[in-house]
Order: sequence, then structure tokens, then C-alpha cells
Amino acid sequence: MARLVVLRIGHRFFRDSRVTTHVCLTARALGADGVIIADREDKTVEATIREVGKRFGGKFSIESGRPWRKTIRDWKDQSGKVVHLTAYGLKLPDVIKEIRDSNGDLLVIVGSEKMPGEVFKLADWNVSVTNQPMSEVAALAVYLDWHLQHSAFDKAFPNGQVRIVPTQDGKQVEDVS
Amino acid sequence: MARLVVLRIGHRFFRDSRVTTHVCLTARALGADGVIIADREDKTVEATIREVGKRFGGKFSIESGRPWRKTIRDWKDQSGKVVHLTAYGLKLPDVIKEIRDSNGDLLVIVGSEKMPGEVFKLADWNVSVTNQPMSEVAALAVYLDWHLQHSAFDKAFPNGQVRIVPTQDGKQVEDVS
Repeated sequence: MARLVVLRIGHRFFRDSRVTTHVCLTARALGADGVIIADREDKTVEATIREVGKRFGGKFSIESGRPWRKTIRDWKDQSGKVVHLTAYGLKLPDVIKEIRDSNGDLLVIVGSEKMPGEVFKLADWNVSVTNQPMSEVAALAVYLDWHLQHSAFDKAFPNGQVRIVPTQDGKQVEDVS
Repeated sequence: MARLVVLRIGHRFFRDSRVTTHVCLTARALGADGVIIADREDKTVEATIREVGKRFGGKFSIESGRPWRKTIRDWKDQSGKVVHLTAYGLKLPDVIKEIRDSNGDLLVIVGSEKMPGEVFKLADWNVSVTNQPMSEVAALAVYLDWHLQHSAFDKAFPNGQVRIVPTQDGKQVEDVS
């Protein structure tokens, strides 16, 4: 089974911790296998996401501090493909089929405004979720929903302690541990 | 033409400014008509979003400081419908058709963990974008993409100064003013 991992580049400790937490929650909920936070360790974000996994189940890996260039090169050395989400890239609807058909492990890079130009060259596809100034959290969300063809809505998250039961206007949480 | 406006509840000045900016950029790029930031004024976020609009074009309204309860009540008094995005709600794929078929003005509420219980009752639909702990930015992104049926990818943003030209591996920006 092909893996899909998100690489978060440009994370600054503390200042970006909340947005990076949003990136991780999005990756997890929408079906990615894990997130790598490049270059900077952030044990707070790691702990938050591990706690979510323990409570709500599923398999999801989180690590931080690995250098971005080496991460991308190692991924490509193992025949993985690389998507870089950027407002400058080709339109998602025009390239998603080609990417999905490539069928291998996929590293999805999200970043900030200061993305190194080299990332554009290293990526197999630079993909835009609209060509407007955009949240990387939002771009990742729409990308994953398209790439995994809405499968996250039915994804099982086994071995958690609790499960949310969808309801019309309340908050229902079931104990499953 | 029906309007779709996003109501951001639970914004705390400064602490939430970056995440709220992500909410606004997402709303704008993915086709909403505007954002109302409830209860707290945030002129910094307002200015950021207005500057994006001036530079990249399109019509998008942004305001902050209006009380959330009154905003929802006024909206409903004018026959508008209300969607509240929450991990506790009914699954998006199960309700999106009904919401789209309602065809009127739509207020889409996004918030934080501390959403008042009353919002669940005031909403016409409580909708989940997965029943997992989730980023409100990501939930909004996927919701808008579904609701507007991917039309944002071809949306025109007239009267801007620049336009991003999608390219394979570079950054191309065209002057259009």
C-alpha cells in the first residue's frame, strides 16, 4: 500500500506551532499516514498530535527536526514521488489524475511564503489549489480530499479511547476503550 | 445570486490572528463572498485581507467585531440559512445535497473548541468534515470546495494589480493593472 506523508517546511518554533498543529490535524483527519516537520524540533506539536492519536485512534506518524533537503532526496532515492503545494503551481484539476496514476509513495510538501526555490525544482509536481494567496492548511485539505477521493469520510481510526458519533445538533462521544 | 458568508466565532486578538487570517484567505480563494469575525475587532487581519484583495482582485468583504448571536439572528431573520462546521455534526457527504438544494443565502460558521452550545441549536445544519479533531481552516476549505462544486478553480478575480500564472516549476506573476 502506497504511503502518503506530509512534509511541513518553514516551521518556526512557537510562532508557527498553532498553524503547524492545524497542518498535522488536517493530514491525520484527511487520511495521510504522517507528517514530518522539517528542520526544527517541536516536541509540543508532536505531543499534541500523539495525544490526539491515542485518544481518537488510528495510525499516524509525527516527527520533527529532519532537514528538508535530505528528507526530499531520501524520499526520491526510494522511488517516492513529490508534490509541492503552491499558489504558483499547475492547477489541481489539471494534474491530479496524473499524480494519482503514478501510484507510488507520495511526499506532499506544504510551506510558507519563504519556500526555497530549490523545492520547486525537486518536486515532481508543483500544484496549486487556486492561484490566489492561500492557507497551506486549506490547500492541504483540498489536496488530500481530491487525492484520496473523499475516502477520509469513511476511514476507520482503530484502537482509540473515544469515537465521535455524528449527530444533528449535539455533542455525542462514545467510549470505545 | 445567493451569498455565502463565513462567520468566524471565538477569535482572540493576536493569539488567533494568524489562524483567522488563514480562515479569511481560504474563504476568499475558495469562493465565499466575505468573512465576519465575531465579537472582537481585528484591524490587522482586516487590513491584511483588504491588501490581498487590492493586489489580487475580486470582491470580498471583511469585517470584525459584530456580536455572534445577533449576526446569526439577523441572518436568519432575512431568510438566510446557517451551517455550522463541527466534528460533532452530520457527515458532509450525507447533507451537502440538502444544503445546496436550499438555494438561499448561507452563513457558514467556523470556530474553535469553545463554541457555545447555543450555536449547535441555532444552526440549520451542523456539518462534520470528518468526525476527527480537525482544523477549522481545513474543514472550511473542504466544505467550500464541495458546496461550490470546485468552481473556485476557475473563478475570476477582476480588478487586481497582479495575477499568478500557473507554471510547472517557477513563480510567474503577471502585471494586470
